Amino acid sequence: MKKLRTAILLADIPEKNADLRYVCGFSAPDPVVVLLGPARRLLIVNSMEAGRARQTVCDMTVLTPEELALSAQEKGRFSGWILGALRLEKCRRVLVGGSFALGIARHLEAAGIQVEVSEKPLFPEREVKNTQEIRALQAVQEATVAAMRRAVAIIRASVPDKKGFLKSKGKALTAEGLRADMRKFLLDRNCTAPELIIACGAQGADPHQAGTGPLRARESIVLDFFPRNMTTGYWGDLTRTVVKGKASRELAAMECAVRETQKAVLRAVKPGVNGADLHKMAIRMFEERGFKNAMKNGAAEGFIHGTGHGVGLEIHERPALALQDVVLQPGNVITVEPGLYYRSIGAIRIEDTVRVTQSGCECLAACPPVFEV
Amino acid sequence: MKKLRTAILLADIPEKNADLRYVCGFSAPDPVVVLLGPARRLLIVNSMEAGRARQTVCDMTVLTPEELALSAQEKGRFSGWILGALRLEKCRRVLVGGSFALGIARHLEAAGIQVEVSEKPLFPEREVKNTQEIRALQAVQEATVAAMRRAVAIIRASVPDKKGFLKSKGKALTAEGLRADMRKFLLDRNCTAPELIIACGAQGADPHQAGTGPLRARESIVLDFFPRNMTTGYWGDLTRTVVKGKASRELAAMECAVRETQKAVLRAVKPGVNGADLHKMAIRMFEERGFKNAMKNGAAEGFIHGTGHGVGLEIHERPALALQDVVLQPGNVITVEPGLYYRSIGAIRIEDTVRVTQSGCECLAACPPVFEV
Repeated sequence: MKKLRTAILLADIPEKNADLRYVCGFSAPDPVVVLLGPARRLLIVNSMEAGRARQTVCDMTVLTPEELALSAQEKGRFSGWILGALRLEKCRRVLVGGSFALGIARHLEAAGIQVEVSEKPLFPEREVKNTQEIRALQAVQEATVAAMRRAVAIIRASVPDKKGFLKSKGKALTAEGLRADMRKFLLDRNCTAPELIIACGAQGADPHQAGTGPLRARESIVLDFFPRNMTTGYWGDLTRTVVKGKASRELAAMECAVRETQKAVLRAVKPGVNGADLHKMAIRMFEERGFKNAMKNGAAEGFIHGTGHGVGLEIHERPALALQDVVLQPGNVITVEPGLYYRSIGAIRIEDTVRVTQSGCECLAACPPVFEV
Repeated sequence: MKKLRTAILLADIPEKNADLRYVCGFSAPDPVVVLLGPARRLLIVNSMEAGRARQTVCDMTVLTPEELALSAQEKGRFSGWILGALRLEKCRRVLVGGSFALGIARHLEAAGIQVEVSEKPLFPEREVKNTQEIRALQAVQEATVAAMRRAVAIIRASVPDKKGFLKSKGKALTAEGLRADMRKFLLDRNCTAPELIIACGAQGADPHQAGTGPLRARESIVLDFFPRNMTTGYWGDLTRTVVKGKASRELAAMECAVRETQKAVLRAVKPGVNGADLHKMAIRMFEERGFKNAMKNGAAEGFIHGTGHGVGLEIHERPALALQDVVLQPGNVITVEPGLYYRSIGAIRIEDTVRVTQSGCECLAACPPVFEV
């Protein structure tokens, strides 16, 4: 039996699909097809995008649906483009990623194409950043650090009123106001940051709560900044937790545990280490210090998320430092971000983004430790 | 034979999936599951998000994987959450959208679940905007119009140097500079706009080319602004094309044809009309005026895109005014944006976003016509 020719197939909107952007470097708000066959690498875009695609993409053959000899029925359907491209490349079998659209897969299967889902990531090389990617990640992380320094300086310079609400230059300092300032600051550095966490007190106990309203003295203020460079598409990620004035004994104990845990994990990051072991180490350290996980009124408390995640063209990507086994490699870029969350006390999270080196790890952009300001 | 209980299933990252955001109003950077069964509406989020989800979502039951009695194998897999939820709801058959992840579908099928792909959109009601959505769309479109007025005023106030490069307050006026100004202006109105097209001369002939470098007198400058409100998630969309100084005879003829075509299509928009007929009408009007479509050096020229598209939680959504049949309904929000593109002359596009009313259509936010400035 003749072996079927297999090609890797991607079919999606590049702006939403990091694999597509990674493999062809072309971004568009409308669907495109990439077919990586044994003979050549095809990029199919609508005719309107053809000129721009040919200018942008150097190592692929750019075609439009008009060049695929499509039937009338195929022309009107995105899956028709794929069938035309497969016919052209004499491919009857495609390998796709797990997020490939089921509707398209069913159309291809109905036309006799074998659609195989890759159990592993389609582009495991995305997890190992090359020099150019490291530079892009460093640049956005440096902007993130600069924003963090500014935010901390603003909180440090603020003054609590009699009720403990922080005032900055005579005006109420709110999560919204500080967020707007940060967004502008990051925009000046070519970064977009639709989401920025500035969460005071109990708000911080929901780790993805953006935070609203006035910032208050003597409460934890979680500052989690994750902007994206608008040109390169790479993300930064950095968290500091500050308290204006003196922290309560409980908050100070949490901060100490989180700081020590982060340090210990950072010291342990190196090639060959299992991400799950790092996560379990963080869990164990918190338990040893008496910080327990529990559900309270339907919400989780304690150390309630993973210890870290990969950062690249997606803000959360592989490899994760969580319950699943994953062996770290040189060139991985990951966050290390233990945290503790108790609604009645507050939240502490400390996060840095590091590059795994040959022998350990290195911060992408150094941000000084800070707590009481 | 007992009829299988069917539920609508969504399983994705809400920030990337407009259907998910539409149906549960909850946004998160990590995957969630929505199961709309005959008995109840379930939202499954990881335990870290449970508190925030319960605060945000009022008409759904929020559960965490821990509440689903999962096997050890199911716990570590996102598809395991879905299997647990289906068991709980006694569902053996699910209806999903065409973009549902193939990898998850295969896992469900391996566990004996029937996965049916909806031929139609899962939530056709997304195409008919309710009062609250219209308000959100108007608000973001008003911010878009304000930005456009400002951009046009800046170009109008600019002065060409001897080579025809525009100077604004003594400094070179570039696509990048004007874009940065627009982004800040929109940020002050709670809108993000990572992409803003400011494309001068031949650059405009690629309709999705963002544009770079100095802006020049007597050339077409396509200004296509599509910001997104960061709170509501709804998009605005507006295009004007301006020329600083006097346009060439060819550009002026193109502008006249585009303006008349847009007017004619806007007059024809009403419930019951087929979007494809509107698109064909635009094509015909351009042909009658002598504007032909052709491929030139691998790039399409002429009227090379659809006449319009729906706007909502996605910048391009249904219904489209393109080759596919689609009957307009009151409450549709669509763009009407004919354009002409010739590399050697330049580009003209005029776009407004309108709401289909009972008897015609109404601009979401009025922006005056403009051409030579």
